[in-house]
Amino acid sequence: MKAGPSQEEIRRHNLGTLLRHVHIGGSMSRAVLAERMGLNRSTILGLVSDLAAAGLVREELPRDTGRAGRPSLVVRPESDQVYVLAFDVGVDRLTAARIGLGGVFLDRREMPMSPDRRDTGAVTETLSGFARQMIDTARHGTLCLGAAAAVRGMVRRADGVVRSAPYIDWKDEDFGEDLARRLDLGLPVSVGNEASLGALAEHLRGAGTGCQDLVYLHGDIGIGGGLVINGRLLDGDSGYGGEIGHMVVNPRGGRPCGCGARGCLEAEAGERALLEAAQRDPSAMGREAVRAVVEAADRGDSTARAALHDVGDWLGIGVANLVNILNPRTVVFGGTLREVFLGSAAQIRSRINCHALAASREQLRLRVGELGDNAVLIGAAELAFSAMLESPLETLARGRAL
Amino acid sequence: MKAGPSQEEIRRHNLGTLLRHVHIGGSMSRAVLAERMGLNRSTILGLVSDLAAAGLVREELPRDTGRAGRPSLVVRPESDQVYVLAFDVGVDRLTAARIGLGGVFLDRREMPMSPDRRDTGAVTETLSGFARQMIDTARHGTLCLGAAAAVRGMVRRADGVVRSAPYIDWKDEDFGEDLARRLDLGLPVSVGNEASLGALAEHLRGAGTGCQDLVYLHGDIGIGGGLVINGRLLDGDSGYGGEIGHMVVNPRGGRPCGCGARGCLEAEAGERALLEAAQRDPSAMGREAVRAVVEAADRGDSTARAALHDVGDWLGIGVANLVNILNPRTVVFGGTLREVFLGSAAQIRSRINCHALAASREQLRLRVGELGDNAVLIGAAELAFSAMLESPLETLARGRAL
Repeated sequence: MKAGPSQEEIRRHNLGTLLRHVHIGGSMSRAVLAERMGLNRSTILGLVSDLAAAGLVREELPRDTGRAGRPSLVVRPESDQVYVLAFDVGVDRLTAARIGLGGVFLDRREMPMSPDRRDTGAVTETLSGFARQMIDTARHGTLCLGAAAAVRGMVRRADGVVRSAPYIDWKDEDFGEDLARRLDLGLPVSVGNEASLGALAEHLRGAGTGCQDLVYLHGDIGIGGGLVINGRLLDGDSGYGGEIGHMVVNPRGGRPCGCGARGCLEAEAGERALLEAAQRDPSAMGREAVRAVVEAADRGDSTARAALHDVGDWLGIGVANLVNILNPRTVVFGGTLREVFLGSAAQIRSRINCHALAASREQLRLRVGELGDNAVLIGAAELAFSAMLESPLETLARGRAL
Repeated sequence: MKAGPSQEEIRRHNLGTLLRHVHIGGSMSRAVLAERMGLNRSTILGLVSDLAAAGLVREELPRDTGRAGRPSLVVRPESDQVYVLAFDVGVDRLTAARIGLGGVFLDRREMPMSPDRRDTGAVTETLSGFARQMIDTARHGTLCLGAAAAVRGMVRRADGVVRSAPYIDWKDEDFGEDLARRLDLGLPVSVGNEASLGALAEHLRGAGTGCQDLVYLHGDIGIGGGLVINGRLLDGDSGYGGEIGHMVVNPRGGRPCGCGARGCLEAEAGERALLEAAQRDPSAMGREAVRAVVEAADRGDSTARAALHDVGDWLGIGVANLVNILNPRTVVFGGTLREVFLGSAAQIRSRINCHALAASREQLRLRVGELGDNAVLIGAAELAFSAMLESPLETLARGRAL
């Protein structure tokens, strides 16, 4: 329990808050900013001037107001001047993006990852290659603020060590530090769990915008999760919160899970379970394979229908549990669970109605992710931008023209 | 996203923070307060003077320092001058307390509640009778700040309406307003869920002190829960978060639950399940009945042992799920689950080791509640004190000498 902030801390907070408004909300007038922040216009003018002088925002005429008369200037983020690097280490694919202030994709690269190139050495080499290419094509004088990477595993918050990422055989890898060394940018590199970052992205820019209590389920090779509680991403005590896929839903005779237990949500409702139940090649994972099952069910294929029915049952039980425990406003199905949800929504809803308490579910909304395959990269970029939105000028001073 | 606070808001925050330190931590010197709040001594002196002038704290010599030399003055809360009323609506019992600043019990009353006196009219009548008795015995000139009541049910945060309290047959009862009218104190009356308030109490003054991420399981006639995330009690979207007892742990062939579903944690591991499995009278609920099973198991009674083994299995699965989802530092077993835990800890731990991810459980501590039957009342008092700790002088000005 600390004392209230100093004048300097308040100024920093206000600069960060204003920048966050235009970073997330896009161009807006000073009048709107004054209204949203509860500050008077002259204070807003001062804050905008400071951020503009630093090259973080620009005031300009709006593109098209659709109204007669002289339009007000709007404040917009300098998206092509100030950027971060975002990386996504998938199970069979590496993706990277250069993302400007305001969340604009300025560049994007990807490459399949072969099973013999999954060690951290090979991964950091590929990612730093992407980084060099993307930096080389950036306009001269633009500023890089930092980088962040998503992994399908458990990341210790304190130091970014990947404690366990079973699908790529990582255990206690100091990936954040390795990547920082390889990138050699002299900038901070953060690491986060892919589903937590997906949750952050959908919360800020996708299906969960404006919602303060959100559960995000991310289907990939497994089932990951991210929880937004009171507008903040839940880390838990050490950073491992949100491992929804390892909630036990079927403790008696459940299917074996990669974690060593049985009956986990991931084992009962993950891609492998769906493809096996649909009598399809379980090694042909990914969005296309899942979509094929949903399309077959739509065409009347009874095996595919039964598979989606079963998986929907388990997902519904898992979501009902989360609704009882957390009373969220919105549950978002992202990654390949987007497709699964579209094929089994009725079953999921029926189970939720059966197992979630009436009061806890009366305001509940089920949504599919809106950011598709970019959700994780967008979340990683937000992680990399977060220092900037806490203290803009100090972070900018540490930025690098590469 | 609001702008930073004004000077006046900072002053209010600092007064509240200082008061919170002595309210929770007990008497401490100005030097310790300066250290903990990160403020200089002259600012602390000013804050203490304001609070002392308002009659909220007093500076005095410490009781016994155990050291030679002249001791420093300590700042202590005026526990017998400023108080709140706390009520606990149990299933078969009504309890009330007058609790002074600093969490000191100044008075406590209780009465069994017969099944035909469970309607809100009868309950508010009994509680307001308690209130009158307790106020009448308070010293002249002492100030009441407000009241709060705990119920075993789902409470809507926005207006304190009890949406559902099945064990006492309440549905959509405007209990907070009814109680306020009956008390007729001209003071705010808050209502909260009993397990959430138990969680708050154990977090602030019991087994979870200093822990920012806590799960509290409360055994009573059912199983309730309260979650502390990042140091704050989780409400969820509408105030119904923490319904841990209705997590489905046994979806296939599970026991019927009072909520209408099957296989809920409460149905598998609640008092009734334990007493039935131990072949005892399931209507003889409560701490004594549970303790009798644990003692029988200690003496070697194999039926009691098997019952505790089964219940421990389900509790362990439930806790493992919460550990995977939330990555808490501490799990506290309160109410009658304290006794259950003492009799089945090995089974609970074994299931957690089986189903919770290794990284998520490596820092985990399992604890029994330290506040016993008073946990809920203490939590209710903290709810009633909360406005005071946000803005002491304004709240004091609204207090009443009754």
